[in-house]
Amino acid sequence: MSEHRFVLVHGSWHDGSLWGPVVDRLRELGHVVETPTIAGHGKGADKAVTHEDCVRSITDFIVERDLSDVVLLGHSFGGTIIAKVAEQIPERLRRLIFWNAFVLEDGHCLNDEIPRQFAEMFYALAGASDDNTVMLPWPIWREVFINDADEALARSAYEQLSPEPYQPLTAKLDLKRFYELQIPRSYINCTEDIALPPGEFGWHPRFSGRLGLCRLVQLPGSHEVLFTNPRLLADKIVEAGRD
Amino acid sequence: MSEHRFVLVHGSWHDGSLWGPVVDRLRELGHVVETPTIAGHGKGADKAVTHEDCVRSITDFIVERDLSDVVLLGHSFGGTIIAKVAEQIPERLRRLIFWNAFVLEDGHCLNDEIPRQFAEMFYALAGASDDNTVMLPWPIWREVFINDADEALARSAYEQLSPEPYQPLTAKLDLKRFYELQIPRSYINCTEDIALPPGEFGWHPRFSGRLGLCRLVQLPGSHEVLFTNPRLLADKIVEAGRD
Amino acid sequence: MSEHRFVLVHGSWHDGSLWGPVVDRLRELGHVVETPTIAGHGKGADKAVTHEDCVRSITDFIVERDLSDVVLLGHSFGGTIIAKVAEQIPERLRRLIFWNAFVLEDGHCLNDEIPRQFAEMFYALAGASDDNTVMLPWPIWREVFINDADEALARSAYEQLSPEPYQPLTAKLDLKRFYELQIPRSYINCTEDIALPPGEFGWHPRFSGRLGLCRLVQLPGSHEVLFTNPRLLADKIVEAGRD
Repeated sequence: MSEHRFVLVHGSWHDGSLWGPVVDRLRELGHVVETPTIAGHGKGADKAVTHEDCVRSITDFIVERDLSDVVLLGHSFGGTIIAKVAEQIPERLRRLIFWNAFVLEDGHCLNDEIPRQFAEMFYALAGASDDNTVMLPWPIWREVFINDADEALARSAYEQLSPEPYQPLTAKLDLKRFYELQIPRSYINCTEDIALPPGEFGWHPRFSGRLGLCRLVQLPGSHEVLFTNPRLLADKIVEAGRD
Repeated sequence: MSEHRFVLVHGSWHDGSLWGPVVDRLRELGHVVETPTIAGHGKGADKAVTHEDCVRSITDFIVERDLSDVVLLGHSFGGTIIAKVAEQIPERLRRLIFWNAFVLEDGHCLNDEIPRQFAEMFYALAGASDDNTVMLPWPIWREVFINDADEALARSAYEQLSPEPYQPLTAKLDLKRFYELQIPRSYINCTEDIALPPGEFGWHPRFSGRLGLCRLVQLPGSHEVLFTNPRLLADKIVEAGRD
Repeated sequence: MSEHRFVLVHGSWHDGSLWGPVVDRLRELGHVVETPTIAGHGKGADKAVTHEDCVRSITDFIVERDLSDVVLLGHSFGGTIIAKVAEQIPERLRRLIFWNAFVLEDGHCLNDEIPRQFAEMFYALAGASDDNTVMLPWPIWREVFINDADEALARSAYEQLSPEPYQPLTAKLDLKRFYELQIPRSYINCTEDIALPPGEFGWHPRFSGRLGLCRLVQLPGSHEVLFTNPRLLADKIVEAGRD
């Protein structure tokens, strides 16, 4: 098995530190792993960021370290980031992995791709906040994000989350160049991921189907399997990322 | 892990005695379990019952024993029972679990939610019976209800079934109050359950999607995994039932 | 467990020799197994064959050996073969198994049932060949046929493939008699099989749903799980094939 250089880009409410046990397992398997935090994310961060700022923070991370041959993974909201990063530095990327990630249609924002009641809830929560952010309500987290955890793990993971900047969820993205890229790509789907409701609005095959020739890898688990089964997730990242 | 009080409500052709090994496993894990038989069900029972009688028999079971904080599970047809029970005694229920169960639209009967050829077959079988009941034909049981069993287990389980009263399959249910209840709910889906044909008429996400915020738990197995893998089913009932 | 006589019919680009470890496992379990090569298939074969020739080669194989009580399995393109074989010698067949196999509508050819861009690619590749055959391009093989293999296995398996005669993919089949047969049937679905894109064009429930009363058996794996997990495939063939 040949080693890869993985860059893992987290989703909303997360930051780069939450990949811990996934990183441990990937390193145990001989891979090099980086887990940058997207601008405006994590506890204590300045949340006044745009989607462009988010993308730039990841592109800069890769360029400043002069990383090449990168297997770039995006989780959830992170999918909207890696698509734009791929447009800007395709020559540095070996493969893209979307893990239960948004693959937006050209011209759409994330909120265009979720059920209307979720978009309206995010709008209301952002409006009620001091700083135009959205915190995920506990019952939603518990029932449909981390449905495979026991209550103690659900709570301890929830405490590590932080409010999500609202602007990046509403930024309409020009993705014409992304859809012309020839970088190999994989989609990882957790079969119990109901953070988006299965069916019309489900992750797979809705988003995976937009990627053209695309390797599918599946595993049991919820949207937050990085907390509930990080070793298996790491093994599946390897399956998705290899040549 | 905190213990729960489970009340398991069986489906058509079944009775409360058939949960045996599921109950053993749940008790082994420290839970309290009750498995009432719905009125008109089981060998030797008087089959002249209505859906209302069926519901009343379960409500009475819970009220007479003064059970509270109940995690109430319905399997298959049992889903139509627990929805009505929940309307009547919501204050006694901690969570509802639908295991490959019908979640009827307001005003529908079970027969409204299955492919027309099944409804017509049930109608014909009831008409041909002495007592307005329907027995499930062996080939259907073997191929699409218990598709994961070997033939010996398929036969021994079939011998424990008894004819299903027909009226409860045709009773149109007023479910307006059910759809206003705020009791937490979970849906357990067996991934090889083809008792309803996958797709347009499938269990999931058709029925799970009607439950609003709802935890999904999946396991491999057929509609009759209580016979083919009862310990795994019990473990998944715990995952579905915990807070 | 009673033993069965299995006849396994391979798909496009394959030949009968590639079932090796599947056969080993089935024999280990006490079954009798035959793995004929379809006319016009395999390295060095004369590729100038029609779909009728393909069907005849399998029918002849069974009749010449006077096989009866056969559990007849078709993989992928092999599904179009076993449907016609079943029309011709139903009295010799105990059960049909379609493993991620085409179940064509009456009057259709295989190319009518795949996304248009695939049909156009096959047309172009056949036209560019010397002998009206189609070789599967490596990137498609690697990403969506054998997505669960590592690169070394993907390559070694690819080297065993040979070009597929084009005519059989375009032959419109009269399947009226097939759809009147009462032979029991099963569908095996690999849950990561994306050789046909999931959804509108997916294997399951699109093709399984055409088979009427049909046992479903699922396993994790790609379209080529005979290379990536042959023992599990064999075990699932037994589950699909038993009475």
